[in-house]
Amino acid sequence: MSAYSIGVDLGGTNLRVAAVDEQGTIVARVSEPAVFDSGPERVVVDICKVIRSIRERNGMEELHGVGIGVPGFIDMESGVVIGSANLPGFEGFPVRDQIQKNLGTRIILENDANAAALGEMWMGAGRNVKDLILLTLGTGIGGGIVFNGKILHGFRGMAGEFGHMTVFPDGNPCGCGNYGCLEKHASATAIAAMGRMMHFGRDTTSAKVFDLAVQGNPRAKMVFEAMGRALGIALASLINIFNFPLYLISGGPLPAWDFFAPAMMIEVKKRAFTFERTGAKIEKALLGADAGLYGAAYLPFQQST
Amino acid sequence: MSAYSIGVDLGGTNLRVAAVDEQGTIVARVSEPAVFDSGPERVVVDICKVIRSIRERNGMEELHGVGIGVPGFIDMESGVVIGSANLPGFEGFPVRDQIQKNLGTRIILENDANAAALGEMWMGAGRNVKDLILLTLGTGIGGGIVFNGKILHGFRGMAGEFGHMTVFPDGNPCGCGNYGCLEKHASATAIAAMGRMMHFGRDTTSAKVFDLAVQGNPRAKMVFEAMGRALGIALASLINIFNFPLYLISGGPLPAWDFFAPAMMIEVKKRAFTFERTGAKIEKALLGADAGLYGAAYLPFQQST
Repeated sequence: MSAYSIGVDLGGTNLRVAAVDEQGTIVARVSEPAVFDSGPERVVVDICKVIRSIRERNGMEELHGVGIGVPGFIDMESGVVIGSANLPGFEGFPVRDQIQKNLGTRIILENDANAAALGEMWMGAGRNVKDLILLTLGTGIGGGIVFNGKILHGFRGMAGEFGHMTVFPDGNPCGCGNYGCLEKHASATAIAAMGRMMHFGRDTTSAKVFDLAVQGNPRAKMVFEAMGRALGIALASLINIFNFPLYLISGGPLPAWDFFAPAMMIEVKKRAFTFERTGAKIEKALLGADAGLYGAAYLPFQQST
Repeated sequence: MSAYSIGVDLGGTNLRVAAVDEQGTIVARVSEPAVFDSGPERVVVDICKVIRSIRERNGMEELHGVGIGVPGFIDMESGVVIGSANLPGFEGFPVRDQIQKNLGTRIILENDANAAALGEMWMGAGRNVKDLILLTLGTGIGGGIVFNGKILHGFRGMAGEFGHMTVFPDGNPCGCGNYGCLEKHASATAIAAMGRMMHFGRDTTSAKVFDLAVQGNPRAKMVFEAMGRALGIALASLINIFNFPLYLISGGPLPAWDFFAPAMMIEVKKRAFTFERTGAKIEKALLGADAGLYGAAYLPFQQST
């Protein structure tokens, strides 16, 4: 087979691994539950085992390297996770070097949201641009900035924290210490919280609010309009700041696009004078949960050019 | 003399030109009133005349090129001003090519706020970093993004419009169509407007509000606190977005730093969880009105490396 690289997406629940060739075709993939109970050493062993099994099937010599997306802040120079709410026991653990020692191949560690942004540029909705911003709506709101075809990391690997942009200075309190963070008003969690305020019941999820909106429930529609407005306020600021050609939205609430996008676009057009003037676009991301896998796999190709 | 380049700062009132050597020393400077009444052709003639006089004094052969900062949006490829509130008659005018034809040397056109950000990196408060953001408080609020030592332009040359970030979604209306833009709450104009609301009189300027604050006037101090809060809200979002090591403030209200900075820092610390954690800094810019001159002069050096 031709040259390939391996992308790893280490999530809170699943460990997903794919071998991807230079054309962006996934030639092999493995998914298994991620086991965190026994500490980071065990996770490293699991990752190495899966990678080794893929290498044995696909050949060793053509492997460009391994990219690993993890849900945490990474010190890019040392390859150490310096902070993560979703990776218990990983803070300060030298993930990259442990895996590199074990496998003897080049490992690149990356934040998962950054990897997803890069993946969308490589094989998704951003294939025609080199500059884009991705916002991922989930429990919180994460994201990544791709500039000149590369991830913009910031000096401590913490760039792209769009979820903590202030959209309402006196809005809902956030765990980060701020009030009115975007993610308190536009994440899947925020949609569910607004749904409960609309008396949809204690077990309300963003998917349930979506189902109700589809059925024509006016309060469910209002939830998505409120969420769309918050998203539009943040996007407008991002557009005025970056003047990038493309802004992508991904995550669980994406199917509700038709319910939140109109309110979002009203805010964007009102608040970002550069938007219509420049022909910038706000679109759905295309790769879903695979974006991070593609992006992780792309990293070794990118660094070898 | 050693190799030098020429920086031009074309402002609404003055045309300022400086010859700067590779070490960043200004070896010659000229300032004269900018005359816009007779159209852009006349402005080009004036610019060329001043540059020629400097070249005659300093020698032709060691000139690296000429950088020109103008208060407008620029199409970087064509060197054409595509929008400007302060350069009447310049929209669509091929400034760069006209000057290049006239002088026969390489001309680089740049937005003045971008040039100022680059100047601060080269010879000002950002000498120790390669990534910084500059906010300039004036009639409006402009700014520039320097990433990896270079200006981040955006795809239509409109990046860095920090003045139109939304800080209060239901705040004061802005000429851009938005409500609660940063510049409606934190520019010199906004300080003067708040001063008038505090009954400081019709002729209130931000300098007058500053004088009153120095004299201990509690309402003048409140104006700067309100302005500092708005600035802090925007800075916190920028910090969460970029994770850069340095954010600089410049412009007329800078002497009032001690009046607005405490409120600004309270907002930043509350709203940007990455701020204290990473050791990022918010500081005064150092070069004042010369930042744009330095940045413009640096452009030809940068492009020849």
